[in-house]
Amino acid sequence: MDIKTLIRKEVLEQAGYRVDTTSCHIKMDAMESPFTIPPLLKEKLSEEMKKVLLNRYPEPGAPAIRKRFAKHYGVDADMIMVGNGSDELIQTLCTALIDSSSAVIVPVPTFVMYRIIAINTGRTVIEVPLDEEFDLDIEAILTHTAMKSPVLTFLCYPNNPTGNCFSSDKIKTIIEKSLGIVVIDEAYGSFSGNTLVPWLRKYDNLVILKTLSKVGLAAMRIGFLIGSQPLIHELDKVRLPYNINSLSQVAAGFYLDHMDLFLDQTEEIIKSRERLFSALQKIDGIKPYPSKTNFIFFSCDLDTDNVYRGLIQEGVLIKNLNSPGVLRNCMRVTVGTREENEEFLKALKKVLF
Amino acid sequence: MDIKTLIRKEVLEQAGYRVDTTSCHIKMDAMESPFTIPPLLKEKLSEEMKKVLLNRYPEPGAPAIRKRFAKHYGVDADMIMVGNGSDELIQTLCTALIDSSSAVIVPVPTFVMYRIIAINTGRTVIEVPLDEEFDLDIEAILTHTAMKSPVLTFLCYPNNPTGNCFSSDKIKTIIEKSLGIVVIDEAYGSFSGNTLVPWLRKYDNLVILKTLSKVGLAAMRIGFLIGSQPLIHELDKVRLPYNINSLSQVAAGFYLDHMDLFLDQTEEIIKSRERLFSALQKIDGIKPYPSKTNFIFFSCDLDTDNVYRGLIQEGVLIKNLNSPGVLRNCMRVTVGTREENEEFLKALKKVLF
Repeated sequence: MDIKTLIRKEVLEQAGYRVDTTSCHIKMDAMESPFTIPPLLKEKLSEEMKKVLLNRYPEPGAPAIRKRFAKHYGVDADMIMVGNGSDELIQTLCTALIDSSSAVIVPVPTFVMYRIIAINTGRTVIEVPLDEEFDLDIEAILTHTAMKSPVLTFLCYPNNPTGNCFSSDKIKTIIEKSLGIVVIDEAYGSFSGNTLVPWLRKYDNLVILKTLSKVGLAAMRIGFLIGSQPLIHELDKVRLPYNINSLSQVAAGFYLDHMDLFLDQTEEIIKSRERLFSALQKIDGIKPYPSKTNFIFFSCDLDTDNVYRGLIQEGVLIKNLNSPGVLRNCMRVTVGTREENEEFLKALKKVLF
Repeated sequence: MDIKTLIRKEVLEQAGYRVDTTSCHIKMDAMESPFTIPPLLKEKLSEEMKKVLLNRYPEPGAPAIRKRFAKHYGVDADMIMVGNGSDELIQTLCTALIDSSSAVIVPVPTFVMYRIIAINTGRTVIEVPLDEEFDLDIEAILTHTAMKSPVLTFLCYPNNPTGNCFSSDKIKTIIEKSLGIVVIDEAYGSFSGNTLVPWLRKYDNLVILKTLSKVGLAAMRIGFLIGSQPLIHELDKVRLPYNINSLSQVAAGFYLDHMDLFLDQTEEIIKSRERLFSALQKIDGIKPYPSKTNFIFFSCDLDTDNVYRGLIQEGVLIKNLNSPGVLRNCMRVTVGTREENEEFLKALKKVLF
């Protein structure tokens, strides 16, 4: 039997998401926090985890976590759903919504999983290029919104990989003109200080995604989807009953119990980002863009395929975005510790000159 | 905006999977292992988990676990995929396969998630009742297979909730006659001693599901899908890149490192099951069915809604399957520890007489 005859065409044509598995002693490619949990607190977390009976299923729907994070984000508990990372929540959205209007709008460049998941779930993806300031091309988006009536529009706020926040006026217009769901992915919201959560009171077609992956708990896969109660009620039927394992539920609670630590680390990353930005500005041939995230997007006068390989030889892994078009010779570096940032800068200069 | 206009009809009509959250001091409802990990070993696992950097993403695709479990099950590493429980793997299958033949065959009664996930992903589910011995109605299934050309057929082996293994000759015929994928869910395979894994060499439309949830690690959500290499290659594109969190990867490795412990516990459960079966047989008005799993399915002369409530009052939670048709006044009890089984029997007798 030719198995391929049984696979959806869109899946066959996909390459799949590729993760760079090159090992380097400095890892600044994946928007992870560079900070670990201090030993004493790690011990405390470990003790909490040790109490979990591993032979028992997790609490379905993670009700305690749901309730606590709802309070944390200032919404009702029935407006929030916990996911195995934001990825799962994007998949749940793409799975639950109607097919009759299958179009999904994705401004590009942006987080690639919107496109991959939408396509794998049988959606038609309309990619709308950002304008030259990496802001939303509002006219193009509104034209597609009017003509294709997209069931979903994904806006990463601030945007990965460009690092900026789109104009909130433009976002407001898109939400108001859209008959479908508009998803605001605030994965990097902790580093921008901006959030559109208050808008949830006004717009019931607005969905906001949050994650603990960028603020120190990437290993645990904890994401949140916040939206109107009727939407969450329906999405919750598509959510797999035991999607959040027991130890991730413990880790999520630990995050709230020790918010001060994680907020301090976030502040430290923001300060480091500004120092790193200034340092990159001073390097000939490098043009960094202002960032509201925990990474910096920059273009380079040289072929970044070479820069990328050179950095790896120096033991530093960053993301090479080089591809035809707007991302030609562009790279993205995640903010590391002060020492990591300095090692990266040293390596970059060595590779460039 | 009426959010419901944006939701797939099949999702709107679903009730969603309901988990019984009644708290009882004896929990025998969910096919969990009654055994915890002994303190010294738990300490060891905890130490291994403590080494994980929680700020870093998990290894995408859990390659080490994939490789080790492939060896454990006697297949190649590119024939296996790790999932966030079998649920996620069922969802991946339902998502990746073609829509043009959307039919999914599910013999009933069986594990309800096949139906729920298939419907939520836009499939048409054909439920085919089991025969009076709870075996497959081969004629009915073959008729549907020929007429509807199902893209998926789910066979739970042994079957939940009836506890028996379907005739392997019938399964073989179904695989041979099917132009779609036949999924053999061996979630309870550790308790039956039977596996169809060797058949993978012969049939490339055969998929086998395994899980660590019934053998002591339900909290960690670890499932495996085993199939032909070309199929896994395609399914892997639909799998979310970081679907298995880092601590679940550690727990899966721990399982293999300490197989003896888990196998001993499995043996103990099998022995307890036989004792529990004999004891149930001796109770007037109770008809238990032979089981190849870690639970016992039984029918009752009384209304099991009352029996269920009575048991809860005694602090014992089991599954009430009571519904019109073949499951009228049927229940399912998960095998517990020797003490739990005795408490259950005592409570059952108290409720019945």
